Amino acid sequence: MSASERTPIDRALANEMLAAAIAEARAGRTTGGIPIGAALFTREGTLLGRGHNRRVQDDDPSTHAETAAFKDAGRRRDYPDCIMVSTLSPCWYCCGLIRQFGIGAVIVGEARNFVGAHEWVADLGVEVIELDDPECIELLGAFIAEHPEVWHEDIGL
Amino acid sequence: MSASERTPIDRALANEMLAAAIAEARAGRTTGGIPIGAALFTREGTLLGRGHNRRVQDDDPSTHAETAAFKDAGRRRDYPDCIMVSTLSPCWYCCGLIRQFGIGAVIVGEARNFVGAHEWVADLGVEVIELDDPECIELLGAFIAEHPEVWHEDIGL
Repeated sequence: MSASERTPIDRALANEMLAAAIAEARAGRTTGGIPIGAALFTREGTLLGRGHNRRVQDDDPSTHAETAAFKDAGRRRDYPDCIMVSTLSPCWYCCGLIRQFGIGAVIVGEARNFVGAHEWVADLGVEVIELDDPECIELLGAFIAEHPEVWHEDIGL
Repeated sequence: MSASERTPIDRALANEMLAAAIAEARAGRTTGGIPIGAALFTREGTLLGRGHNRRVQDDDPSTHAETAAFKDAGRRRDYPDCIMVSTLSPCWYCCGLIRQFGIGAVIVGEARNFVGAHEWVADLGVEVIELDDPECIELLGAFIAEHPEVWHEDIGL
């Protein structure tokens, strides 16, 4: 099925999916890390994997929330019917993942604290939904205010 | 120092760095995995991190050679004076990593078995050296011939 033939993702379902990513972001905050969470779902809403940024907890710069969720989902043959849900606009690294593996859709919790490359993948045909969620904005915004140096390190700025 | 002010990477040094990535690719083959290796160096040739693709060994689709080397190097404030060396042209996922973290240079072992996005990062100002190395070509070429389904899964094709 091509992207244009798919039923658009329902907003209520998108918010339900975002709740899983927010729970991950909260878990990241609780363990002293950067509060960004993500989850990978099927378009029908089945959870495949979830995770959060692990830079602080594991001294691991490679584990962004999206790559953690992708890893947690394990091996798959392909991803066109998958949705990557993140509390934050995915950066170039994570959008590169989305492009390389052909993930069909992205749900963006917020793009106020940081604008990554979600418009780039949208231009490539990925279905992108921005939710502008207040809790996503508050969680990361508070962390950035408290630990700007960790945030800038994480995002390469 | 801007990219244009830097001394270009010496070919002999580039080949020395590539040897570390090839050793990782061989280790990947020995353990039954996809033989792609990478290493992160300073421009002066100090090894910061190294690793290889772990899809098969760990059932981990998120660990490409480049992300493994990046993780192995640990946390850093920035990367403009770093070189990512890979036995293969880095895919969109790994070039997204290079772009997001501002890695200054990329050494590509080969771009015959697969052309990733190294020209994209070159256009963005990253110094890119292609070495067209026979051992890199042979290592991955033999794996693709033997396990095309694993290769296609790994690269999202």
